[in-house]
Amino acid sequence: MKTFVNPGKDEIKQITTRPVIKLKSLKKVIKPIFKSVRRRGDKALIRFAFEYDHAEIKDVLVTEREIQAAITKVNPELKSAINKAVANIEKFHQAQVQSELKIETMRGVSCMRRSVPIEKVGLYVPGGTAPLFSTVLMLGIPAKIAGCREIVLCTPPTKEGRIHPAILYAANLVGIHKVIKVGGAQAIAAMTYGTESVPKVYKIFGPGNQYVTAAKQYVSQKGMAIDMPAGPSEVAVYADETAIPQFVAADLLSQAEHGIDSQVLLVTSNVDILKKCKLEIDKQLDKLPRKRIAEQSLAKSSLVVMNSQEEAIKLLNQYAAEHLILSVKEPEKVADQIINAGSVFLGNLSPESVGDYASGTNHTLPTNKAALAFSGVSVDSFVKKITYQKLTERGIKTLGPIVEVMAEEEHLVGHKNAVTLRLKYLEKN
Amino acid sequence: MKTFVNPGKDEIKQITTRPVIKLKSLKKVIKPIFKSVRRRGDKALIRFAFEYDHAEIKDVLVTEREIQAAITKVNPELKSAINKAVANIEKFHQAQVQSELKIETMRGVSCMRRSVPIEKVGLYVPGGTAPLFSTVLMLGIPAKIAGCREIVLCTPPTKEGRIHPAILYAANLVGIHKVIKVGGAQAIAAMTYGTESVPKVYKIFGPGNQYVTAAKQYVSQKGMAIDMPAGPSEVAVYADETAIPQFVAADLLSQAEHGIDSQVLLVTSNVDILKKCKLEIDKQLDKLPRKRIAEQSLAKSSLVVMNSQEEAIKLLNQYAAEHLILSVKEPEKVADQIINAGSVFLGNLSPESVGDYASGTNHTLPTNKAALAFSGVSVDSFVKKITYQKLTERGIKTLGPIVEVMAEEEHLVGHKNAVTLRLKYLEKN
Repeated sequence: MKTFVNPGKDEIKQITTRPVIKLKSLKKVIKPIFKSVRRRGDKALIRFAFEYDHAEIKDVLVTEREIQAAITKVNPELKSAINKAVANIEKFHQAQVQSELKIETMRGVSCMRRSVPIEKVGLYVPGGTAPLFSTVLMLGIPAKIAGCREIVLCTPPTKEGRIHPAILYAANLVGIHKVIKVGGAQAIAAMTYGTESVPKVYKIFGPGNQYVTAAKQYVSQKGMAIDMPAGPSEVAVYADETAIPQFVAADLLSQAEHGIDSQVLLVTSNVDILKKCKLEIDKQLDKLPRKRIAEQSLAKSSLVVMNSQEEAIKLLNQYAAEHLILSVKEPEKVADQIINAGSVFLGNLSPESVGDYASGTNHTLPTNKAALAFSGVSVDSFVKKITYQKLTERGIKTLGPIVEVMAEEEHLVGHKNAVTLRLKYLEKN
Repeated sequence: MKTFVNPGKDEIKQITTRPVIKLKSLKKVIKPIFKSVRRRGDKALIRFAFEYDHAEIKDVLVTEREIQAAITKVNPELKSAINKAVANIEKFHQAQVQSELKIETMRGVSCMRRSVPIEKVGLYVPGGTAPLFSTVLMLGIPAKIAGCREIVLCTPPTKEGRIHPAILYAANLVGIHKVIKVGGAQAIAAMTYGTESVPKVYKIFGPGNQYVTAAKQYVSQKGMAIDMPAGPSEVAVYADETAIPQFVAADLLSQAEHGIDSQVLLVTSNVDILKKCKLEIDKQLDKLPRKRIAEQSLAKSSLVVMNSQEEAIKLLNQYAAEHLILSVKEPEKVADQIINAGSVFLGNLSPESVGDYASGTNHTLPTNKAALAFSGVSVDSFVKKITYQKLTERGIKTLGPIVEVMAEEEHLVGHKNAVTLRLKYLEKN
């Protein structure tokens, strides 16, 4: 961990810069995968499951029987926890649903806007070292609330050709019935082109390894909608003298254990707090099962002392963290000044983990400074907002001449004609 | 124009497929432009203005004096029309502003969501054959309503090194004071990297020619947020026996005159209406100043007869038009079944032109089937929605154990620790 005290401009640039993700070289790897999936459909997916996941499977679609078997395997304690998390996530996301907007901008000119669900969406849930059933909830719940008609979930099978029971339990609970045993770039390819078992979708969501990320970027260039540009997960903690170093250390480590490319940043108000937090990190790190991973990601991370709160907030806004924990005396006051962040955790009793799982907010958030312009996943991400307008006779008579003048100035006589013909017609009839 | 009667699956594919836009070859053209702008800043922009716009300019930034001079040049009739359009657009977009969302998902667990403006945004307004001051309104008004702190507008200069007065009048009216004389890929490069006169922005909006489109796609791959993938403009008209062929023809032609790559699609309920519309198109086309352009885009367009309304709506949803005009008996009833479109125009008295200029809805809309997953520009496009959470002691005590169970199952012990340490601390204190 590198320590900075009141860093200058160049150092701030260094602190806020994320490690470069080289997706270009991955394109060479994923292109043949895409080609194969496009040509051979399910057969290609079965072959890739063998090649990459070392799983012999006959069908890529998880059967109803497998789902029911999985449900019985999940222990009651976990079921109860998932059920409570679902209730919270549903509450917060249900509140995001927007009702129809209808405005009469002029007498006889009605303008409307309506949220219409994206018909077909694809959710990617990583497998690998951790069975991320929480991601099933974070993507599946808003998709269901939005009203998407077709929701397909792709996730890689284990060596035994199975999907982790908690993933199937979560999927079933939120109402996703099409779960496909496919991971990596081939999953993204399947949802892009469609196969015998996988429907072609209009938007793809979810985190993943570098191949998944590269594949999502690849299809996005070809016009496929994706949730957001992905990068390694990250947290920034802002701690003043009221912070509890033990908590700060735990929060930083909970991020660091995600992967060796995770990023953590600590900004403190003085050197004393920084020292205490550092000691706590060393102490807690030793006991972590994922110590090796956390160590590597901590090595690339920064601890920063900022004497003024104003400068600290400026740095945090430049960093634009995916997760920002405000372990400060007046977290709301600081939060009001935060203009760039994915999700903000207020005070000593709000660790990132609560948002990762169960508080109700979404955990699919913008990384790698994308929070400068992107939001996290929400019900909005699963709808399009279509606008409508309807003019009455009075409306076109009032608005028409305005449009005629403007269209003429833009040299678009055809645009003007569409109005003029109507006005003439109304005069005659 | 190609005519289809009750087309089959293959023909529908043909009808709904847009002409391919080849952006790859343009990358070779734009890359050196980007390099030059990055290295030489304003100097590069001045050189490109000479090279591409044949304009000798000393400064790229439009001065206050130029703005004031332009304002006096715009005739009162146009000013009045623009002012009324602004009022309508403001009304509809102001209604899109979302208030803070605050939900207590569990006792002691507060989740919030707030719209925060994107700090710095860049708007591109094409010059060329038509001075698109309407685009200034459609991008500038929502940016201002959202509260973006820095708004920069790039638009190419005329040969005389000037910006069309109506563009400057519109920009000034909506409160944009930084107008830059730069067009093409170099404008996108300037807003991406920043130059002496152009601020580096976080999101780029606006239509443009193929170089601008390619440049936006290029920067989007590098993580820059853009409004939406761009393609040529398009309209679909659905006309039943209540439609007025004269209006239908005018609406199709108003789209066709945009550019030679514009797309129009007419879906009718019977051959008789189709014939009448076709006759009207021929009649009106002859009188259009932009006849040559309209002819070329019509040549690639389709006229389709669909005997059943159900099939017609299915086709329209597959086409996913940027603009959809419903010249039918019960337009609201049909609109309820439209799930893919950018903006919908209801009834015989609602031509596309009203939405292009002044009804209040936005004219920056998804083309090329992007309406399957994308919305048009709105106030939403200029904000990020940041989520927040705050737990009380009671909150973490209730939610904590749920998170512990879930984190453990995902093998993320660090995540669990962040909660466990807090629960232990609260027990002791």
